[in-house]
Amino acid sequence: MNYKMATKADRNEIYSFKNDYSEGAHPNILKALLETNLQQQLGYGEDEYCLRAMELLKEKMQNTDVDIHFVSGGTQANLIVIASVLRPFESVIAASTGHINVHETGAIEATGHKVNTVDTCDGKLTPAAIRTVLNQHTDEHMVKPRLVYISNTTEIGTVYNRTELEELHSFCKANKLLLFLDGARLGSALAALKEELTLADLSRLVDAFYIGGTKNGALIGEAIVLCNEEIKDSFRFNMKQRGALLAKGRLLGLQFLELFKDNLFLELAQRANSLAAKLTSGIKEQGYELLTDSTSNQVFPIFPDKIIEELHKKYAFYLWSRMDENSSSVRLVTSWATDEAAVDAFIRDLGDLTRK
Amino acid sequence: MNYKMATKADRNEIYSFKNDYSEGAHPNILKALLETNLQQQLGYGEDEYCLRAMELLKEKMQNTDVDIHFVSGGTQANLIVIASVLRPFESVIAASTGHINVHETGAIEATGHKVNTVDTCDGKLTPAAIRTVLNQHTDEHMVKPRLVYISNTTEIGTVYNRTELEELHSFCKANKLLLFLDGARLGSALAALKEELTLADLSRLVDAFYIGGTKNGALIGEAIVLCNEEIKDSFRFNMKQRGALLAKGRLLGLQFLELFKDNLFLELAQRANSLAAKLTSGIKEQGYELLTDSTSNQVFPIFPDKIIEELHKKYAFYLWSRMDENSSSVRLVTSWATDEAAVDAFIRDLGDLTRK
Amino acid sequence: MNYKMATKADRNEIYSFKNDYSEGAHPNILKALLETNLQQQLGYGEDEYCLRAMELLKEKMQNTDVDIHFVSGGTQANLIVIASVLRPFESVIAASTGHINVHETGAIEATGHKVNTVDTCDGKLTPAAIRTVLNQHTDEHMVKPRLVYISNTTEIGTVYNRTELEELHSFCKANKLLLFLDGARLGSALAALKEELTLADLSRLVDAFYIGGTKNGALIGEAIVLCNEEIKDSFRFNMKQRGALLAKGRLLGLQFLELFKDNLFLELAQRANSLAAKLTSGIKEQGYELLTDSTSNQVFPIFPDKIIEELHKKYAFYLWSRMDENSSSVRLVTSWATDEAAVDAFIRDLGDLTRK
Amino acid sequence: MNYKMATKADRNEIYSFKNDYSEGAHPNILKALLETNLQQQLGYGEDEYCLRAMELLKEKMQNTDVDIHFVSGGTQANLIVIASVLRPFESVIAASTGHINVHETGAIEATGHKVNTVDTCDGKLTPAAIRTVLNQHTDEHMVKPRLVYISNTTEIGTVYNRTELEELHSFCKANKLLLFLDGARLGSALAALKEELTLADLSRLVDAFYIGGTKNGALIGEAIVLCNEEIKDSFRFNMKQRGALLAKGRLLGLQFLELFKDNLFLELAQRANSLAAKLTSGIKEQGYELLTDSTSNQVFPIFPDKIIEELHKKYAFYLWSRMDENSSSVRLVTSWATDEAAVDAFIRDLGDLTRK
Repeated sequence: MNYKMATKADRNEIYSFKNDYSEGAHPNILKALLETNLQQQLGYGEDEYCLRAMELLKEKMQNTDVDIHFVSGGTQANLIVIASVLRPFESVIAASTGHINVHETGAIEATGHKVNTVDTCDGKLTPAAIRTVLNQHTDEHMVKPRLVYISNTTEIGTVYNRTELEELHSFCKANKLLLFLDGARLGSALAALKEELTLADLSRLVDAFYIGGTKNGALIGEAIVLCNEEIKDSFRFNMKQRGALLAKGRLLGLQFLELFKDNLFLELAQRANSLAAKLTSGIKEQGYELLTDSTSNQVFPIFPDKIIEELHKKYAFYLWSRMDENSSSVRLVTSWATDEAAVDAFIRDLGDLTRK
Repeated sequence: MNYKMATKADRNEIYSFKNDYSEGAHPNILKALLETNLQQQLGYGEDEYCLRAMELLKEKMQNTDVDIHFVSGGTQANLIVIASVLRPFESVIAASTGHINVHETGAIEATGHKVNTVDTCDGKLTPAAIRTVLNQHTDEHMVKPRLVYISNTTEIGTVYNRTELEELHSFCKANKLLLFLDGARLGSALAALKEELTLADLSRLVDAFYIGGTKNGALIGEAIVLCNEEIKDSFRFNMKQRGALLAKGRLLGLQFLELFKDNLFLELAQRANSLAAKLTSGIKEQGYELLTDSTSNQVFPIFPDKIIEELHKKYAFYLWSRMDENSSSVRLVTSWATDEAAVDAFIRDLGDLTRK
Repeated sequence: MNYKMATKADRNEIYSFKNDYSEGAHPNILKALLETNLQQQLGYGEDEYCLRAMELLKEKMQNTDVDIHFVSGGTQANLIVIASVLRPFESVIAASTGHINVHETGAIEATGHKVNTVDTCDGKLTPAAIRTVLNQHTDEHMVKPRLVYISNTTEIGTVYNRTELEELHSFCKANKLLLFLDGARLGSALAALKEELTLADLSRLVDAFYIGGTKNGALIGEAIVLCNEEIKDSFRFNMKQRGALLAKGRLLGLQFLELFKDNLFLELAQRANSLAAKLTSGIKEQGYELLTDSTSNQVFPIFPDKIIEELHKKYAFYLWSRMDENSSSVRLVTSWATDEAAVDAFIRDLGDLTRK
Repeated sequence: MNYKMATKADRNEIYSFKNDYSEGAHPNILKALLETNLQQQLGYGEDEYCLRAMELLKEKMQNTDVDIHFVSGGTQANLIVIASVLRPFESVIAASTGHINVHETGAIEATGHKVNTVDTCDGKLTPAAIRTVLNQHTDEHMVKPRLVYISNTTEIGTVYNRTELEELHSFCKANKLLLFLDGARLGSALAALKEELTLADLSRLVDAFYIGGTKNGALIGEAIVLCNEEIKDSFRFNMKQRGALLAKGRLLGLQFLELFKDNLFLELAQRANSLAAKLTSGIKEQGYELLTDSTSNQVFPIFPDKIIEELHKKYAFYLWSRMDENSSSVRLVTSWATDEAAVDAFIRDLGDLTRK
């Protein structure tokens, strides 16, 4: 079959900054798939690639007391972890902008649980914000908040640093709350924080988190890490019940093996961040402001609507929110696969449009 | 990384007939992944591979009035379809041996619905069996059966032929029941039925079904086909809510493109069936009986326990059920990737053990 | 058994304005229970009292095209109606102060559905507020709002008048939304609106509502009214599944028979409202302000904390919310059973405390 | 209002043996409702009647280590208890005839849990039967059985004696299963077992049970008893979430106060049983057989269809199951309110019909 797509001419010309999952997988991953393809393996995540990837990840975390499970996507990871730790009347606290609150079609509620939300300016929860929710929930006529859900990076590109995570950790411990970190873009967060935060730290600061593969070089796959002993039991039952135990689980294990040998995972994220930083500085140089102070791979510049209209002729990206009558914020996302020439072209084109 | 696995010596010697998902994907699929890897595509199943695979499947079905959606696995397909068509108090009827009843960790119940079961000898539902369930459910103190779930091939290797499906179709229509076919091993069923049943027929005989990729050459993926107009609306909402909309949906679409061009899907199933037939006749020639009269890629011979013990030293396979004090049935599964030499060796070894 | 309770001395002295369910039932109801006690009746709401109460309510509504079902409480009514009309991915829109959002321990989420909330000042939804929610929900990555939930009276004592309900009705119709009214305190709302709004009007303006008995003279019981033809089918299955079909459903039917013959239901509500009005004017006369402009049986005065402390020695009532460092709002509730002398005493005591 | 019902002539003549909830409440209960009606009480089961009824029940059980909660009906009791103790992937084992399996419209599944069933002849589970289910559930592809559900009396009138309950208790303990007893007709079971089994025994033999009020003299109400320390926490949250916390919980507490002072509960059940025994011996004397060897208040005689047709002209009762071409079993139920004259008349009429 000929994969030259019969696309419309204009589509061929457009470069996409829509997201970090526009391309396939890092070539190393495809190479590994080819090399191992005909080896017989056990099903449902008990294959040797999964087992070795689990070992490798524990090594990277310098923590053998975690359990690791691979699933196919972020919504699946979120709903399984959350439903597995909550009793029927318990709820999860999230920022209003949290992925589980806005962009998962009620997946958490479909497992029976309420999401208690807090409005924030930067998409980040704080002990004070969580305290507010706790104070509002005082008796059996209300749900009982039990889990705190945060995303790093957040849905609007901001990053929790180590101090913030330690504060959340202490607060949750003191208030008998579990802390769960959605790491769909964890690579970008770790890269943004440089040496400040490691997987090893993370495994001690949260009760559970997941490492996002799909948005950082994998074809598919997220690695759920269960750190708290109390939530590990029978987790595979939860996975199977939600349709997350893949017969050929090898596909997931193998990718994490590739991503975590030789530091590939972090390198890919660094590349994504650095291209985003290039976009940011190019945009700022033209005099534009940004909605959030992102150091990760998502950038939210504010442009006049007319400029946006022109840019859309050559670049695909999402409109984010209306700022005033004449301008809006947009979202530009970079990834390991982003073409640096496209970044340069975007800045150049923006300059041309700005000077017109 | 070196994928020569550091396995135990004895593991290297064992050939697995455990299932039809021990290996990776058909090489054509990996080739297509490589060729398309860096093309930018839309996410969540709106990429061109998905769109083209949908068109191709409709062509093969000679039916443009179906909706097609790709998901990552069979339990996921089952739970999404079933939960999407039932009202809270409605139930699904299945054979006691049905995958949704036994092997999905209560996935259907987790969406709120009861599975009404019927005992059968061959894993196949009949109008009479369904009628029994309907007769038992007469008022609002009981669930209201609304959907009939069948698998083709069944969980014990048997096959519904065209006549049987037509009878179920008519019965369901007459009784306002929906008919859903789990096609995890649909390839094997179609191959077993030869020209008798086509995808085109199927799309007119059931309200929904899915075409299993994972067990017939794909790395991952099942194609859900919605045939009944009334159940198509908003299906993607259901998928997203259950964690089944993959960011890189391209991975699923591309594989079905490969499987359904040039008839590869059917050819792979034919190979699996013919190797199973070779096993069956080799086993029968040694004087052994089989638990079910399977014409598909699962074979259930009955062996003395001592023979099983010896065979297990060289072959991996599942014990199925105890027959009497000294013998048990086992399950042998073949696939597109099964080594014919291993089939020959198995028969030869069985002969040697039998003559001892 | 001697029902003189062995309560603490101080408890005996305290008069409760905590709620409208501190006493038992209107004496007429107990009388009817005695008179009918030994008559044999069918179970599960098919008794003659239920049937006659349904007829009587339809008559009062001048609407024979409604279905009526009796259940034991408000949370039960809400969760059954809402779960019965929504598909898995559909959500319900409510004011943040809505009972289903705050005070039902996640009962709606436990049936699988998200509650989308809007902040309001007066606890009342408007077309503009609902529009905001609709605008935010644009694709399958988000829930699909399908139902609008309002309470009349609201949880903070305000009342939707006829015009407001007509506007909501038109807006919902135009946007394919269902409109559901929680009438836990519907009696008080109807009484507050005087002739302006009738049950007949209501049955044409909403798709479903319930008439609260528990808070207006019944021992227990709410009457669910299904007005929209499309949501009537199989409702009793939903009731049974949620544990709401009482074996002795006669208990519910009989009470509504009593409440709706001779206008008792409205008279009881009028009495509650008029005593609340007496409280309001007495409080205002002392120079205090109220949190909301309530015309119903809930009053929310703002008092200095010191006054509250003194009042609590003789009256039971809920603290509502802190206003500033030295004052808070409290909630005073009246009912058909409120002792007018206690109202007079409260105003007198407040006057004394104020003048101190 | 005049409660002389405008019933059809033939309805007036028919005496009902359909169930044990055809009449209202024992007169003592109505009397207590009248006496306490206007006393102000706290809502939601924190009133003094509930508190005193809890104390009284603990006294009767000689067990202060139980928690007691009152709810409005049996399906509600079952679904709340079961959903509160199971994790998402855990299931409950029941006899196929179990109320939760057949007659609760999938209420347990609606909370997300599978009911594993065992066929029995007498409606009673045994360690051996439970063992069979455990043996079938071996890994994470299947639900994990965690709770055993039994009913005493069973749905077909049989009774678990003390020895049987002790065996189940030991088996469950040894296999880490919880044991829950549905006591909708517990009064009848205790009365049938005479001194052999007490509430005190029961509270040590099961992890949770409920005492059925509705079918033994109450207007409404079941008392859930939680015996196992591990399942007590936060139970009121579960109740509220399922709509079971009644605003006027006093209605429930007061009835149990009346039923359990002076032994009324047991006396009412004894009367029901003794009238059932009279029916049984009268029926046997005419030469008829019974489907089950019931010593409780449900009797299942087998009659020729012609006799049934004639009996139905004067008595209401349920057809139970067809025995052969010409005969069926029927269900006759007695209660505290059954008219002994009606029992005598039934036997006399049966004699007349038999001799015809």
